[in-house]
Amino acid sequence: MTIKPTAPLSPGACIGIIGGGQLGRMLALAAAELGFQTHVFCPEENAPAAQVSTFSTLADYEDKPALDQFAASVDVVTYEFENIPVSSVTHMEQHKPVFPSAKALEVAQDRWVEKSFMRDLELGVTEFYDITSPQDLRAALDATNGEGILKTRRFGYDGKGQWRLSASSQLDAIIAELDGQAAILEALVPFEREISLLVARNAAGDTATYEAIENVHKNHILHTSTLPARLSATQASQAQTMAEKIADALDYVGVLAIECFVTPQGLLVNEIAPRVHNSGHLTQDACHCGQFEQHIRAIAGWPLGDAHAHSEAVMTNLLGEDINDWQNWAAQKATYLHIYGKAEANPGRKMAHVTRLRARR
Amino acid sequence: MTIKPTAPLSPGACIGIIGGGQLGRMLALAAAELGFQTHVFCPEENAPAAQVSTFSTLADYEDKPALDQFAASVDVVTYEFENIPVSSVTHMEQHKPVFPSAKALEVAQDRWVEKSFMRDLELGVTEFYDITSPQDLRAALDATNGEGILKTRRFGYDGKGQWRLSASSQLDAIIAELDGQAAILEALVPFEREISLLVARNAAGDTATYEAIENVHKNHILHTSTLPARLSATQASQAQTMAEKIADALDYVGVLAIECFVTPQGLLVNEIAPRVHNSGHLTQDACHCGQFEQHIRAIAGWPLGDAHAHSEAVMTNLLGEDINDWQNWAAQKATYLHIYGKAEANPGRKMAHVTRLRARR
Repeated sequence: MTIKPTAPLSPGACIGIIGGGQLGRMLALAAAELGFQTHVFCPEENAPAAQVSTFSTLADYEDKPALDQFAASVDVVTYEFENIPVSSVTHMEQHKPVFPSAKALEVAQDRWVEKSFMRDLELGVTEFYDITSPQDLRAALDATNGEGILKTRRFGYDGKGQWRLSASSQLDAIIAELDGQAAILEALVPFEREISLLVARNAAGDTATYEAIENVHKNHILHTSTLPARLSATQASQAQTMAEKIADALDYVGVLAIECFVTPQGLLVNEIAPRVHNSGHLTQDACHCGQFEQHIRAIAGWPLGDAHAHSEAVMTNLLGEDINDWQNWAAQKATYLHIYGKAEANPGRKMAHVTRLRARR
Repeated sequence: MTIKPTAPLSPGACIGIIGGGQLGRMLALAAAELGFQTHVFCPEENAPAAQVSTFSTLADYEDKPALDQFAASVDVVTYEFENIPVSSVTHMEQHKPVFPSAKALEVAQDRWVEKSFMRDLELGVTEFYDITSPQDLRAALDATNGEGILKTRRFGYDGKGQWRLSASSQLDAIIAELDGQAAILEALVPFEREISLLVARNAAGDTATYEAIENVHKNHILHTSTLPARLSATQASQAQTMAEKIADALDYVGVLAIECFVTPQGLLVNEIAPRVHNSGHLTQDACHCGQFEQHIRAIAGWPLGDAHAHSEAVMTNLLGEDINDWQNWAAQKATYLHIYGKAEANPGRKMAHVTRLRARR
């Protein structure tokens, strides 16, 4: 049995956040603006989110007694990253409302389940093949003209657990590296651009969809996001319908991110993230209600906020030593700097982001 | 000797905030967005600011050893209210930079010093009289046609320590209530409206001035603030010049609030607050850089932010049980709700504010 809330959470209630990174930090800050207390659960000391939360628990994500104590101390539980064990979520769902639900997490954690789910909804996805053996891989490559992207079904992010395969790939070495992990092979997609869709949904079934955001990656890590994405009116309308369809099918509560390819054949869903998303950071400054406040509103049973973008925006991630440019960014007009409180600027580490606004055209 | 900073504070540095109320809370949240840690010092348990700060100290404002320990743990000290003892500030100034300086605090804490300071700057002030005895009061009332507002020189706020005097006043009773406190008598001013000016200044002497904000009080407590205030272009320009003149004269660092009366004879300075101000809350949502971030930038030695208002705005304070309307406010478009995390909704207590934006005309 899972616990469902019966009324909106009043200000003063405590929002439990699993995960201590920058997404948790910005969720905690947004929750505080609405008068909520926050409790961050994570295994790292001095985590970005814990620095700004009312309470924090330092424990592993599999530590059931610690999770029990955490759940007992809060009014609702959410999470900032999708690699939390589903069993931890189902465990807590017996005691407190957890949003998004374990179902959304299960779909998002497994690329095969995810793609199959989208296909069952009759949404466009890239051609994909289930890979459980070297034989599967060779057969799938035969079907995709020897090219494709091999991805582990689970635990991939920012390009990790991915191999671009072509005729010249050292297949044996890659199979060895894969080490028996379940995987999928995706056919290559000649896409025009990558976009993300952010949709918020509350338990009453209301949705609020943000305008599509266009993303540019560098070295498999998000570099810039721009609102609005370059889409035709038809594409924009399809995107919104698609986002709402997925959120409804998952009976989703919270903010859901959907990454898509724009292709000549239409929109293809690449992957979903059952949480606020890096590409949505610009909504903080460009929209009346940003994704962090929106997520808190949704899981608290509040009316959803106004997702309308009052300005156009470009968000740039500051990775590793990019953060040393903070004085330059801080001096620019109509520019919003968000720094995550991380002590070590390791190469590629997401340290901050900056959003530049411009008037709508 | 007072300590002055030599370079801008880097993200990760710790901002010390004296005072645990909603102003401290919003300062701490703004500091966190810029990647700073925060340390809140206040005597109340579970204070609004302490709920969102990285560290907190529970001690009295006169507790010198606790203040020493606090100052040692932070990189810069600021405060969210002006009734902190000047001696506590001068004490800490020996160890760490404190902004605004003790001088601004001394001027703001004493209505006679404050009004004299403005008069010396050749700025308009209401006619005022130093009251140190019942004889002084009677003589002053003779000079103001028997009418005026008697105010204690120190520790007044939201109408406390004030008496409206007229021919029918029970002067003996009021003198007894005053109980020998130093006071001033102000002549009545037939003003058209009340406005506040917010100016930020950093140690380099750069200033950023917000457009004038028009205020409406109810029962001596701020009810609504509106941007822009209804001023002629000449008045608006005078207001800006006046704000910068005061900030420069105080060698001010931080955000300074100046409350003025708009009269047919020009602008009269009523009082100043050496801190972020309730009437400036709308800048959070209507301006590129709100007063809280601006104050943090100023005291951290950062470039000042963009004070331009991208939208018009009306802010309404939610006092006491007004907070029970939160669901109604939360459902409105282009409306920003800020709730302070206070457990008890006592009558007249500032619980939250709501800012409604509209497009500039």
